[in-house]
Amino acid sequence: MYLTGEIYLATHQTPVNLQDDGCFFMEVPIILLASDYMSLAVAAAKRGGPATYTNPQVGAVIVKDGQVLATGYHHYFGGAHAEVDAMQQLTAAQLRGATLYVTLEPCSHFGKTPPCCRRIAAAGLQKVVIGQLDPHPLVTGHGRDYLQSHGITVETGCLAATVATLNRHYDWFYLHQRPWITLKYAMTLDGKLTAQRGQRSLISNHASYIDSQHVRQHFQAILIGEQTLTIDDPQLTVRLTTLAHPPVRLVLLNNSTAAVNTKLTQPSTVPTYLLCRQAAASDAQLSAQPNVHVCIADWTPAKVSAWCARNGWQSLLVEGGSHLQADFVAAELVDELIIYLAPTVFGGQGLPTVTGVAAASPLTFTTPQVTVFGDNLKLCLQRKEAQ
Amino acid sequence: MYLTGEIYLATHQTPVNLQDDGCFFMEVPIILLASDYMSLAVAAAKRGGPATYTNPQVGAVIVKDGQVLATGYHHYFGGAHAEVDAMQQLTAAQLRGATLYVTLEPCSHFGKTPPCCRRIAAAGLQKVVIGQLDPHPLVTGHGRDYLQSHGITVETGCLAATVATLNRHYDWFYLHQRPWITLKYAMTLDGKLTAQRGQRSLISNHASYIDSQHVRQHFQAILIGEQTLTIDDPQLTVRLTTLAHPPVRLVLLNNSTAAVNTKLTQPSTVPTYLLCRQAAASDAQLSAQPNVHVCIADWTPAKVSAWCARNGWQSLLVEGGSHLQADFVAAELVDELIIYLAPTVFGGQGLPTVTGVAAASPLTFTTPQVTVFGDNLKLCLQRKEAQ
Repeated sequence: MYLTGEIYLATHQTPVNLQDDGCFFMEVPIILLASDYMSLAVAAAKRGGPATYTNPQVGAVIVKDGQVLATGYHHYFGGAHAEVDAMQQLTAAQLRGATLYVTLEPCSHFGKTPPCCRRIAAAGLQKVVIGQLDPHPLVTGHGRDYLQSHGITVETGCLAATVATLNRHYDWFYLHQRPWITLKYAMTLDGKLTAQRGQRSLISNHASYIDSQHVRQHFQAILIGEQTLTIDDPQLTVRLTTLAHPPVRLVLLNNSTAAVNTKLTQPSTVPTYLLCRQAAASDAQLSAQPNVHVCIADWTPAKVSAWCARNGWQSLLVEGGSHLQADFVAAELVDELIIYLAPTVFGGQGLPTVTGVAAASPLTFTTPQVTVFGDNLKLCLQRKEAQ
Repeated sequence: MYLTGEIYLATHQTPVNLQDDGCFFMEVPIILLASDYMSLAVAAAKRGGPATYTNPQVGAVIVKDGQVLATGYHHYFGGAHAEVDAMQQLTAAQLRGATLYVTLEPCSHFGKTPPCCRRIAAAGLQKVVIGQLDPHPLVTGHGRDYLQSHGITVETGCLAATVATLNRHYDWFYLHQRPWITLKYAMTLDGKLTAQRGQRSLISNHASYIDSQHVRQHFQAILIGEQTLTIDDPQLTVRLTTLAHPPVRLVLLNNSTAAVNTKLTQPSTVPTYLLCRQAAASDAQLSAQPNVHVCIADWTPAKVSAWCARNGWQSLLVEGGSHLQADFVAAELVDELIIYLAPTVFGGQGLPTVTGVAAASPLTFTTPQVTVFGDNLKLCLQRKEAQ
């Protein structure tokens, strides 16, 4: 037998059972709290991942007499809701009188599936513990009210801070009617994107590259500027996994000429939107490509954001370059920064990460969350105003 | 009684003594290794700190029959060496046959004090364990050889990696005949020093400011450029403590006009050197100030470095601004970076940390050592070529 961890023998009030071999054992009862059940529901919710697309990630746990009877989650966009996923594993007798722990307020409206609230009430559950109310205007508060009006005890706000990390983009979108906007860049220790203007530089290491692919899959749209298009000629795809709903690809351009013969305008199952300020002869040719769209307007960061919102995209990842980033900073349309910091200095002629129009005032962010990838640091920060 | 940590009862071969109250105890002999004694010597060495000035920090431990008899260190520039500091605590009988653990090779030449090697040999010590050989050309290898030729067993390289952190500047200076050069700056998440060119911006928080004062006291010279002089008008003093040998203050200028009526040219006990490229009418007036020196030459980073070396200053802290930093990067005269990273974005018109002449190639650094100061990060990195 091994004793591991910290054990306070002398102060323990329960008798210690000595065995023949001099070893001893204790029986310690485990009592789970509401927050423990909600933690299980949060872990379940995360299994949905990017597959839930514009739906939130939701997890549910059904408990009766201190026993977890079923765990469910929202598997994919259009699939069963988490509550139903859990409930359909149980018999009517098991459900009657049980408690449901669910990370998000159960829906009360007919969407792709019938409202969960009705099924919960009909099944005779006794109590529903909710992580957070749904910010979706069709649901918020209505689910809770429906349950209460049907005699079900409802608690809200359980493990709220943890639950809030599940659907940051979804929550933001419905609270602010615009996408959550993240700026992502790799920079050197002297704050440079490239060693020289007009040139591509490899900055971050392989582990950071892999991570940046993981980051992409959580966004519904990715935006780059004209310089990044012509210098990097990127694909902006998620190459590690197959996504049912990969992020759409947006490019902000003066006109579409620069997009001719780029990877982004080749035939693809992922749409590309060329956001051009002016019409050009190449518009017709490019628009004829499957999934390539030329959209002409006097684009600004605010207009891009509003247009994403109209398309229902809840999150926008801005991947440079320097001038596009300055535009979004100046427009104060930055909710998050993801920075890969490489242990290199490019020196006096390198291209700064953010160059161009001035910001009216500095943007301030939370304490950075640091992840180490070999000799690279990943810094994640949310805008203070966005908290 | 408490049991803490991991204890493997069943696999332990020594009998476990059970007491009346059901508790048990084990007697575990403690055996110290050479590296343990050297660790004590390293800890002692650090007590010297900046007071040792251009002398190295050195610690010594004298051991006999497994017992530590005395611990010593080099207290201050001109004071007793660590070995002597320890030996003078003991009687002749105690010293005879003892082992000395010392972080740096004992000296063999007459400097401010008579050579330690002679005293060690005369006292009849049996063995000397050395952390590292002294890179000082007057000592290196000679101390070891003297001891061996007097019948003393000598071991070198004990805990070498740890010992090497004690006197990075001193070691570098004697190995490379130039000062260790550290660039230090506070920057935003978009790599900016100030929100606008020609303007001063407060970037780092109070904890970072306090730390930057601690950093200064370990350097023998601090250098700034003309823009930093005129915009910030700094004092470049160590304001937290009284130092016997504060760092001298250097300013790189076109001519001395900009230094008139600045804090750096006020009467002070700390010398200021105005490194000017051209003579000016203000030279005479400034040179008349006590401790202010005007030095006219075609200054480059390499010339500043060589001039520091001639003055015996083993370490140079470059504190900006942007152009001066670019000059040192381009000259590849950067051995270390200390960066305070603040959770702010200044945007498209901020002044980049390093602007000016191009570097021929990027400088690469080690994995950053990260310290958290509230919402600021301090990053310390050594140049890879400097390892």
